[in-house]
Amino acid sequence: MPPQARARVRDAVARRATGRSLEGPFYTDREFFDVDIEAVFARQWLFVAVDAELPEPGDCTTVEIGPYSVIVLRDDDTLRAFHNVCRHRGARILDPGGGSTGNLVCGYHKWTYGTDGTLLHAPSQPADFDPGCFGLRTVHVRSVGGLVFVCLAEEPPADFAEVAARIEPYLRPHQLRRAKVAARTDLVEDGNWKLVMENNRECYHCDGHPELLRTFFPTYGYTEDNVPAQLRPAHERYLRADAEMRETYERLDLPYALIEELHIRPTGFRIQRDALDLAGESFTPDGAAACCRLLGDLATPRLGHLALHMQPNSWFHVLGDHAITFGVLPLAPDKTLLRTTWLVHQDATEGVDYDPDTLLRVWTATNEQDARLVARAQQGVSSPAYEPGPYAPTEYQVEAFCAWYIARLREELQR
Amino acid sequence: MPPQARARVRDAVARRATGRSLEGPFYTDREFFDVDIEAVFARQWLFVAVDAELPEPGDCTTVEIGPYSVIVLRDDDTLRAFHNVCRHRGARILDPGGGSTGNLVCGYHKWTYGTDGTLLHAPSQPADFDPGCFGLRTVHVRSVGGLVFVCLAEEPPADFAEVAARIEPYLRPHQLRRAKVAARTDLVEDGNWKLVMENNRECYHCDGHPELLRTFFPTYGYTEDNVPAQLRPAHERYLRADAEMRETYERLDLPYALIEELHIRPTGFRIQRDALDLAGESFTPDGAAACCRLLGDLATPRLGHLALHMQPNSWFHVLGDHAITFGVLPLAPDKTLLRTTWLVHQDATEGVDYDPDTLLRVWTATNEQDARLVARAQQGVSSPAYEPGPYAPTEYQVEAFCAWYIARLREELQR
Amino acid sequence: MPPQARARVRDAVARRATGRSLEGPFYTDREFFDVDIEAVFARQWLFVAVDAELPEPGDCTTVEIGPYSVIVLRDDDTLRAFHNVCRHRGARILDPGGGSTGNLVCGYHKWTYGTDGTLLHAPSQPADFDPGCFGLRTVHVRSVGGLVFVCLAEEPPADFAEVAARIEPYLRPHQLRRAKVAARTDLVEDGNWKLVMENNRECYHCDGHPELLRTFFPTYGYTEDNVPAQLRPAHERYLRADAEMRETYERLDLPYALIEELHIRPTGFRIQRDALDLAGESFTPDGAAACCRLLGDLATPRLGHLALHMQPNSWFHVLGDHAITFGVLPLAPDKTLLRTTWLVHQDATEGVDYDPDTLLRVWTATNEQDARLVARAQQGVSSPAYEPGPYAPTEYQVEAFCAWYIARLREELQR
Repeated sequence: MPPQARARVRDAVARRATGRSLEGPFYTDREFFDVDIEAVFARQWLFVAVDAELPEPGDCTTVEIGPYSVIVLRDDDTLRAFHNVCRHRGARILDPGGGSTGNLVCGYHKWTYGTDGTLLHAPSQPADFDPGCFGLRTVHVRSVGGLVFVCLAEEPPADFAEVAARIEPYLRPHQLRRAKVAARTDLVEDGNWKLVMENNRECYHCDGHPELLRTFFPTYGYTEDNVPAQLRPAHERYLRADAEMRETYERLDLPYALIEELHIRPTGFRIQRDALDLAGESFTPDGAAACCRLLGDLATPRLGHLALHMQPNSWFHVLGDHAITFGVLPLAPDKTLLRTTWLVHQDATEGVDYDPDTLLRVWTATNEQDARLVARAQQGVSSPAYEPGPYAPTEYQVEAFCAWYIARLREELQR
Repeated sequence: MPPQARARVRDAVARRATGRSLEGPFYTDREFFDVDIEAVFARQWLFVAVDAELPEPGDCTTVEIGPYSVIVLRDDDTLRAFHNVCRHRGARILDPGGGSTGNLVCGYHKWTYGTDGTLLHAPSQPADFDPGCFGLRTVHVRSVGGLVFVCLAEEPPADFAEVAARIEPYLRPHQLRRAKVAARTDLVEDGNWKLVMENNRECYHCDGHPELLRTFFPTYGYTEDNVPAQLRPAHERYLRADAEMRETYERLDLPYALIEELHIRPTGFRIQRDALDLAGESFTPDGAAACCRLLGDLATPRLGHLALHMQPNSWFHVLGDHAITFGVLPLAPDKTLLRTTWLVHQDATEGVDYDPDTLLRVWTATNEQDARLVARAQQGVSSPAYEPGPYAPTEYQVEAFCAWYIARLREELQR
Repeated sequence: MPPQARARVRDAVARRATGRSLEGPFYTDREFFDVDIEAVFARQWLFVAVDAELPEPGDCTTVEIGPYSVIVLRDDDTLRAFHNVCRHRGARILDPGGGSTGNLVCGYHKWTYGTDGTLLHAPSQPADFDPGCFGLRTVHVRSVGGLVFVCLAEEPPADFAEVAARIEPYLRPHQLRRAKVAARTDLVEDGNWKLVMENNRECYHCDGHPELLRTFFPTYGYTEDNVPAQLRPAHERYLRADAEMRETYERLDLPYALIEELHIRPTGFRIQRDALDLAGESFTPDGAAACCRLLGDLATPRLGHLALHMQPNSWFHVLGDHAITFGVLPLAPDKTLLRTTWLVHQDATEGVDYDPDTLLRVWTATNEQDARLVARAQQGVSSPAYEPGPYAPTEYQVEAFCAWYIARLREELQR
């Protein structure tokens, strides 16, 4: 962190008031953005892909994390990740997008790497050239229940293994490793990555999501004490659905308890199995499943949704019939990529077991609605007249996100 | 102002030579641009709209002043202005453009403000939430003879009331509050805002304005002593027209004396009622009025033009038959918005009393010609080989603009 | 150089390891780019045009060198160069592109300069105005064998005259001053200017140039000791062709000896007359001449090519039938203009003596292939995970370029 940026960040961190939104420069300033890359995206475990994108040995994909480019690759049974940078003169090795590869060959001077990253061949070198010194630089990678995370740091946060162990039992019944990618969308939002995350962490704005609210209870984030009067009927429905779901979960031996550790650890997360409205099966107009072939070996679609939220860059809805993953990647202070992936059972057939339009409709609409809200927020906080305002109680997960984020900056400032 | 910018600005201000153009970085550098926003646009009274845009209670418009967005709104009889930023999480409230509004509702979480800026409703707040603390942040606003000015500073320049009092008698006969907007154009010029202003402050370049020069005397800015030989015939015509106009002004009791205080006060201005060539009524090929219905209760169109120039961002031509306002708003070091508004009597009917093409032709052409000149100037001063050059005597108002501007920077450096 | 940039550049220069590529910020950082303009492009002699573009008195062209714009003009027999900036308020005088001009008239206020740069007329000035103080600022310009170089520095590198004297005998037989421009292309590459230069300085990547390798020996840059096994057949062909060419050069009294002083002087250069494969005459599929009318008074096209490489921004291939010049101009840290010009004898007729498609094919394809490689390199070195890697022996001219460049930065840091 350059000295001048360090001073500005330190002062802004010191001024941060709990329960209020962050100051404008956190969202708009290039220096703060660079600090975010350094302190968050180059330090933490990040969700970047799904195992289902890489089913076969040699399958690979690339992901851009701020200025970094990373190759994720299945080397026989092992997932591997490398910096997408040739060790010769630094050329990018793989183009964006996925595919299948044998050796990794740099297109500039044909330096050739194995799928384990070792340099196999560099033409026309002198006798004392040691290829062992020029393998691809590795990146930590780990699959958790079919979700692929990487960490750019040399020493990743130590608590990830524990978090993974607590998450996996929830994910296991859905067998996402045996899923296939039904669709993937990339949406570039006109806002800072933190505004995209904050928007995800509350349903205070859910009036703007008519499609989602068919099945998603708008009382999410409220408590018995503070659920507003106009949401009381929905709350009553929720209580009934919740009671029924708990019976189902107990009967099927599905883990469902809420764990909420969003800001008290480096690998902040929240997980909960929860009811949906109407048919209670999926994000569709009537709540019925969008895919006939269920995930894993599940026997019933009426399971509500498994909601997983992770810091700093992802959330997930895992249903009986499909799963949706959301990954957030920063592009610029005011540009963010939201990558959404829909997974169905690997044997589900498009047009037979599921109609893609129905499968994608709700979250495509919801993402676009959120993108418009995020853009409004970005425009507003860009004014020097903007001052941090107070979070409502139902926005406590936004506060948790900000608290987690500020803690990461504090750590970085102490390095 | 960041310390590094402060040092650079201080040195450049100290080097400024009277009678010469400004050094390159004033026009090209992002740091200097940010200082301009801080020292000029966030401090001074700015022309941003006309009353005629907001005739009815609830009518509103927004204006972008550098990174600021401001709502201007008619609340019953009172003009009000607010920062266009929700007090919750900072979302932009109103989209660009004008309209009519009841309450101001933020599209993100439905925080709702009255037209006086008070927070009327914020959903789902705890008992101790005090809406009185979260009204919209106000911006100073003042109408002068139908021209709307705002000031973003907490303490606006104290001399504005005095200047307004001196200007209003000149404007009063034209009754711009009873006018309507016949047309408005937004032109983005590829140059720094100061180049746009400087270009407006001299007629040394007027050879490039054939349409304008049908009626606008090219001797503007020259004196008896220095009017060049080739402009002598025009000067003779001017002297005759001027003598006739003075008689008319005296007869009709219209204020016409030149007041020129462009750089000796914060609210620098110049006002003068002056003759036009040919029919002497309007900016048309033959100088005849472009609108049959005259402004206010005027009985004759042969009044020349009332020319008003104000620092830092506006100029005006008020005629017997119509008025044209010009507002300059900085977008980037090398991008500037010029907003031009044509006003006619509120009872004038398009196609009957005036032909929009005729009304707009001269100044649309002139603006475009000026934009090309400004772009050339921006390109040239971007070269490190550019050195400030000498102003000719006829460019004394450009010097006045620069002197006013440098004085504002000096003030800012002393804060 | 701002203090902060100076410190960063000084540290990066100190860390530079011989035989390895440069650190990432040299290619990606705006501050380093600005230093390159200051330390290299505003100091050194730069190839910017050919005499053949300016055959007649009054012919002129403009060239953009980073933020500078320069007019190059033939004033009777003398080449002249000026900053393209009016001495009044700095407006750009000539638009991009070439043409023919009498006086140079600024489009803003009609200040008028002669073709020798003197201010001939500035309207409406006071009596004490001295036009002698406001001539156009001159730029050093020099033609070497028909190639036009400019230098923005007040005191150009002193060794240019000596280098010119050593180059001219090689160029003389081709008489480029009597050539005409058959074609010119501008290619904007998505990479730093140094990556464009480095790419030109080795044939380690030449596998990617199938059209070029029809006649260009891929052994370029290798030595007897390190030519790889798979290039042995080509090397054998080269040795035979080289022996024959040497006889030809001796017989025709054409200078051909290799001079290689790429990094040991400010005006670094390399010159060599060398064999081509197949017919050995030109860059065509079969190596036969692309133009029937030979350059100068040459009697045979079978002359291989005269290869001239100059620091910091040019290279040249001069053949019996035509010549190709390559000039590199920086646009942004990650954008570079490559201007390629094809010259044929001034009496050669398009469609009769040469087919433009055939003439341009090889180097158009080669340039586009190189542009893709440069873009890959730019993408890769933009990752913070990039580390400088080792040059192979055949990349010794890349090392020479970097060593020359680092020496220039060292000089600048000592000013």
